[in-house]
Amino acid sequence: MSWLTGIEPGREGVLDLVDRALALRAGAPPQAFPGRRVGAVFFNASLRTRTSLEAACALLGAHPISLQPGTDAWGWEMRPGVTMDDSAAEHIDEAVPVLASYVDVLAVRSFARLRDADEDRADPVLSAFCERSGVPVLNLESTRWHPLQGLADTATWVSRLGRDLRGKRLVLSWAPHPRALPAAVPNQVLTSAALQGMDVTVAHPEGFDLDPQIVAQAEALAGTAGGRVRTTHDRTCLADADVVYAKSWSGFSGYGRREEEARARTGLGHWRIDPDDIGGAGFMHCLPVRRNVVVHDDVLDGPNAWVQEQAALRLWTAIAVLETLLGEDP
Amino acid sequence: MSWLTGIEPGREGVLDLVDRALALRAGAPPQAFPGRRVGAVFFNASLRTRTSLEAACALLGAHPISLQPGTDAWGWEMRPGVTMDDSAAEHIDEAVPVLASYVDVLAVRSFARLRDADEDRADPVLSAFCERSGVPVLNLESTRWHPLQGLADTATWVSRLGRDLRGKRLVLSWAPHPRALPAAVPNQVLTSAALQGMDVTVAHPEGFDLDPQIVAQAEALAGTAGGRVRTTHDRTCLADADVVYAKSWSGFSGYGRREEEARARTGLGHWRIDPDDIGGAGFMHCLPVRRNVVVHDDVLDGPNAWVQEQAALRLWTAIAVLETLLGEDP
Amino acid sequence: MSWLTGIEPGREGVLDLVDRALALRAGAPPQAFPGRRVGAVFFNASLRTRTSLEAACALLGAHPISLQPGTDAWGWEMRPGVTMDDSAAEHIDEAVPVLASYVDVLAVRSFARLRDADEDRADPVLSAFCERSGVPVLNLESTRWHPLQGLADTATWVSRLGRDLRGKRLVLSWAPHPRALPAAVPNQVLTSAALQGMDVTVAHPEGFDLDPQIVAQAEALAGTAGGRVRTTHDRTCLADADVVYAKSWSGFSGYGRREEEARARTGLGHWRIDPDDIGGAGFMHCLPVRRNVVVHDDVLDGPNAWVQEQAALRLWTAIAVLETLLGEDP
Repeated sequence: MSWLTGIEPGREGVLDLVDRALALRAGAPPQAFPGRRVGAVFFNASLRTRTSLEAACALLGAHPISLQPGTDAWGWEMRPGVTMDDSAAEHIDEAVPVLASYVDVLAVRSFARLRDADEDRADPVLSAFCERSGVPVLNLESTRWHPLQGLADTATWVSRLGRDLRGKRLVLSWAPHPRALPAAVPNQVLTSAALQGMDVTVAHPEGFDLDPQIVAQAEALAGTAGGRVRTTHDRTCLADADVVYAKSWSGFSGYGRREEEARARTGLGHWRIDPDDIGGAGFMHCLPVRRNVVVHDDVLDGPNAWVQEQAALRLWTAIAVLETLLGEDP
Repeated sequence: MSWLTGIEPGREGVLDLVDRALALRAGAPPQAFPGRRVGAVFFNASLRTRTSLEAACALLGAHPISLQPGTDAWGWEMRPGVTMDDSAAEHIDEAVPVLASYVDVLAVRSFARLRDADEDRADPVLSAFCERSGVPVLNLESTRWHPLQGLADTATWVSRLGRDLRGKRLVLSWAPHPRALPAAVPNQVLTSAALQGMDVTVAHPEGFDLDPQIVAQAEALAGTAGGRVRTTHDRTCLADADVVYAKSWSGFSGYGRREEEARARTGLGHWRIDPDDIGGAGFMHCLPVRRNVVVHDDVLDGPNAWVQEQAALRLWTAIAVLETLLGEDP
Repeated sequence: MSWLTGIEPGREGVLDLVDRALALRAGAPPQAFPGRRVGAVFFNASLRTRTSLEAACALLGAHPISLQPGTDAWGWEMRPGVTMDDSAAEHIDEAVPVLASYVDVLAVRSFARLRDADEDRADPVLSAFCERSGVPVLNLESTRWHPLQGLADTATWVSRLGRDLRGKRLVLSWAPHPRALPAAVPNQVLTSAALQGMDVTVAHPEGFDLDPQIVAQAEALAGTAGGRVRTTHDRTCLADADVVYAKSWSGFSGYGRREEEARARTGLGHWRIDPDDIGGAGFMHCLPVRRNVVVHDDVLDGPNAWVQEQAALRLWTAIAVLETLLGEDP
């Protein structure tokens, strides 16, 4: 089994992983996997993801091997059939099966390029890894998903709101940011929350919509679990939430017109999460967060900020996932 | 003992290491070296070499420590007696013995600069490591040799053609490439094959010769082992081979006239390995490989491509070598 | 307990750590800390410090996790209250507690910027780590201190001069260098030597003074321990020393006039340590060292150079410190 979208195990399967993560946090000993290797290929920067993954390996007795193509390894060509007379020295056709032959789990981070909707929807690098890897693939954030984040988020909800999340009110709020950002995290939050039957409201300015395919899937998941998914351009919903999850993202309908979107963004600074916006709701963000752009310091440093617990759970949820991936018969 | 050229153990010694590597691949448990450290200094990029080395350490219970001078460590001055008032902050005279005092094996990668034949022949960085290290030195590709590649290649030949390689027909074929490349790999392939008594043909265009010193040594090794070394400018020999090993390299006689060589290279695209060229021969390449420049996709993706087994054997052969280096009385 | 200035344990406490380091060097087994993690954040390059730390972890059965913000992780904003609409994506307010939640010890390297005396005196990055970390902080060289270097230096003095260092004559000599350098190492050498009651002479050209606060503290420590601290512009004192410790640094009174200092430096090449300068004294330097700028090759390659033992002791002293930090009840 690979770990690509975070909803593979279903609602109960995810809760089992959350239970395990919270037990590990409470002191349960991790399983032991001496000599096992987790390869991690980072096409984008990382703090929490790489560090928590390496720490998880350490606690499992396993060994992380992190690579950054283009920095410490050769740049990679991704296109099929190309004549490689340009700068890339290595083709993904060789690199992935070779790496897979050295490790027990192959993890990869590759963000959306935000240039072509079809390309990003195809999640080309993650898909290429899956097609070529002989070992389980672990998604460390792809163009569309960030499943380890989604599991840590779910663990945070369970820790704060209880194991039965049905009907709990989560507002996923768009937030200002100086740059156009991928939608992997909001996609994941929406989907993970819907899977648990939460009452999810996606609040964003006009034009900053999420991929309708993903919204439709979330609606279906929420329906099955007894929850709901709504979308609004009205920020007042933040005041009634149990939890507000802030994140900036580029509009799905903005592919091909990013300059126009950038101009629109300059007038949307009031979407910053301020103390008055959120009442007593818990505040979450995947981090890194632009202080006083995305969210006011008083929220982030206030008593209802859950971001540190959320980030700390990245470690324990990563261990729970790696136990699953490493525990399979090779 | 250090591991510098890959022929140190002689023909039988190399076969013993191959036997061990193939046994490890088949499931034999690696030896255990808890707490032992393998330092690896990379002056050039690496995918397979670093990853397989780190994975080998993990399987041995040992710890890899990888460094990239100029990126995460200080740049190094190599020249003796120099007044260090330029950019380099660290001299190899200090760096190597210091690193050697922290680790049990000191590995290094440093490619040929292709500017001066005498300099590259002297293998200055590898030599400097050997002169200054108090622990065994492991060559991860130097100006002239790539012995871990040579051992994996030999293991591939044994796996595919049997343990007695005498008389097996290997064609080492020059291949097109957009850049001038060092000859460490072709030197190694030629020498490793000659050591096993293979019937080796080096095929290359005029002007793209290998170092005559290395050819002469290979001829002597082949003679001792019952094999043969020939050189040709005629590509038709590829059709009769048991195995075709493709690689681009700069001509040894091209030192000092690289621009002229670059112009010549533009007319040599037909040296690409195409399906019609090689009959039923196995196809090998050290990787990374420029698809459709060095070799046609149909060869690389075809049934006679041995490159994945070849690359996978990098792990098991690295373990076999590290068992030898770490098993010595310190 | 954190390890920030290297004098926290007092004179006897430092000697206990030195005893432990020398016992480890002689073959005493390190303690075992399986599954424990040491995070190390490098804002500046490192060879000895990172490598010896990672090797120390290996010998303890612990796992190092090294990060370089801006290279493999996001750039960090350090200022409080700032609106993060510039390039930095991560604030130290989030990064440090998050990392601290993944590891057992959090280490950091951040050099002085040499632009503002008050800023460098405040040791802002190290201080920020201490304020935000829930686990012990280990200083890998800050604006003012390099305590792991100081412990290795003290171990070298004990190894060469005996455990009772009172009255042993150390000359800390300024040395030429093409660039303006922080004073963390000379501060540390002065302070570590004063703590042991050595007879310390700081020799430097006019204008290249150390921070008077640090000198005053060293005088007080030396007075307590039965030693002495003097400052001179006369290099002839080198001839009478038991040990000469060379290092270049920027003058504390030179903040705000670095260009003037750079001009002055061009006329100070004669402060290079030459064989005739030092008689039979041991020669020390923290490395990396600019050969034939800071010190003549004949000193560095001569029989009285202690730099290799000094650097090798970085490993054993790092283990001694980590045993203390990892051995505390979490």
